Amino acid sequence: MTIIFYELAGATDDLCFSPNTWRTRMALAHKGLSYETEPCRFTEKDKIAFSGQKRVPVIRDGDTVVHDSWAIACYLEDIYPDGPSLFGCDTGRAVTHFVNSYMNTVVHPAVVRLLLADIHANLHEMDQAYFRESREQRFGMTLEEVSADRDGNLAAVRRALVPLNDTLGQQDWFGGGGPAYADYLVFGAFQWARAVSPAMLAEPGTPLHAWNERVLDLHDGLGRRLPAARA
Amino acid sequence: MTIIFYELAGATDDLCFSPNTWRTRMALAHKGLSYETEPCRFTEKDKIAFSGQKRVPVIRDGDTVVHDSWAIACYLEDIYPDGPSLFGCDTGRAVTHFVNSYMNTVVHPAVVRLLLADIHANLHEMDQAYFRESREQRFGMTLEEVSADRDGNLAAVRRALVPLNDTLGQQDWFGGGGPAYADYLVFGAFQWARAVSPAMLAEPGTPLHAWNERVLDLHDGLGRRLPAARA
Repeated sequence: MTIIFYELAGATDDLCFSPNTWRTRMALAHKGLSYETEPCRFTEKDKIAFSGQKRVPVIRDGDTVVHDSWAIACYLEDIYPDGPSLFGCDTGRAVTHFVNSYMNTVVHPAVVRLLLADIHANLHEMDQAYFRESREQRFGMTLEEVSADRDGNLAAVRRALVPLNDTLGQQDWFGGGGPAYADYLVFGAFQWARAVSPAMLAEPGTPLHAWNERVLDLHDGLGRRLPAARA
Repeated sequence: MTIIFYELAGATDDLCFSPNTWRTRMALAHKGLSYETEPCRFTEKDKIAFSGQKRVPVIRDGDTVVHDSWAIACYLEDIYPDGPSLFGCDTGRAVTHFVNSYMNTVVHPAVVRLLLADIHANLHEMDQAYFRESREQRFGMTLEEVSADRDGNLAAVRRALVPLNDTLGQQDWFGGGGPAYADYLVFGAFQWARAVSPAMLAEPGTPLHAWNERVLDLHDGLGRRLPAARA
């Protein structure tokens, strides 16, 4: 049975900029599962009301509905054990949870400041007013003010990438000899930027920059099919 | 054959304050291996000259000498596969490497600022002049100046602990259902503080604070045997 994957879309259906839905997209591909996507804008949350909450990613697999990218990864690992493993083992899953925490509490909050105005510019017009109002309330300033100090915001992102670069100085993938869910957790942030901004999160010449190119090539270039924003 | 474990000691032989040697001590206990300790001060590096470098931890296991806490953990996992696993699997090992990077590049640099003057006060007198000179050169100010803003330094440490707390809000150990090497990586920083300072890295009531108590109880209370510094 084909899995239905509800994801966030921007101005066009293929402008999939959500870092958390990229985690799910890569996990589905890693497991070799077929799926159909259902684009869903911020103001179309009625499409996922059946999930009992308001955030994507959501998957529907037959009669089963799962939301939250981490819960989805665990579901795919447990229900489809025959596909390549996302975590390797229970300890691997637990430690990967720290990568999830690191991305959610440190890297994403830095990246969103860099991208906020660019995200708004790449939204479907039906979402722009909602996005501006909700984010300006959250940050206590305009989108343009949050993203005004581009150099400072990029420097903060690169500080947040230091421990990730340190690890990749010693191994090719966060998963070791090949990609695992830890790689997709980090990759989500990179696709977020790729979709909406010419900013390069990883400095050219760093291990993360080379790793990003490798992840873009995985699963028949799945990540590379996301059109890259241009300056 | 008994492993010889060279570790850093302070004013007394049981004042083992080095976070990196605590990683090794806990890894040896996790594997159920017997070992003898050989205390080594900063100015006694001739004791480990046979290892070809100047930093502890170093272990000598028969004819094999291994230095660097990460290399030692990998050695123990590979050579003593019958003991409980430190990583669970290859993916677990690779992802644990990111925890190692996070502690080394983010948490330890924050903690050292908090503890620097306290470390100096707890050194054997033979080490105090060397420590003051080398660290004051590194920081470009006196030890007392680095550690003067105690509240600010503690706040910086607690910011660095945010993603670790986030993970432990959802599982009891970094290793998942039980402790793994990822736990010992984090625990090293806590023992560093316990040995020399009354400062509490983790705020009481947080998941990390409760976790620290659990790790102190592991392996017959190995961590708790380190005398706690008092105000």
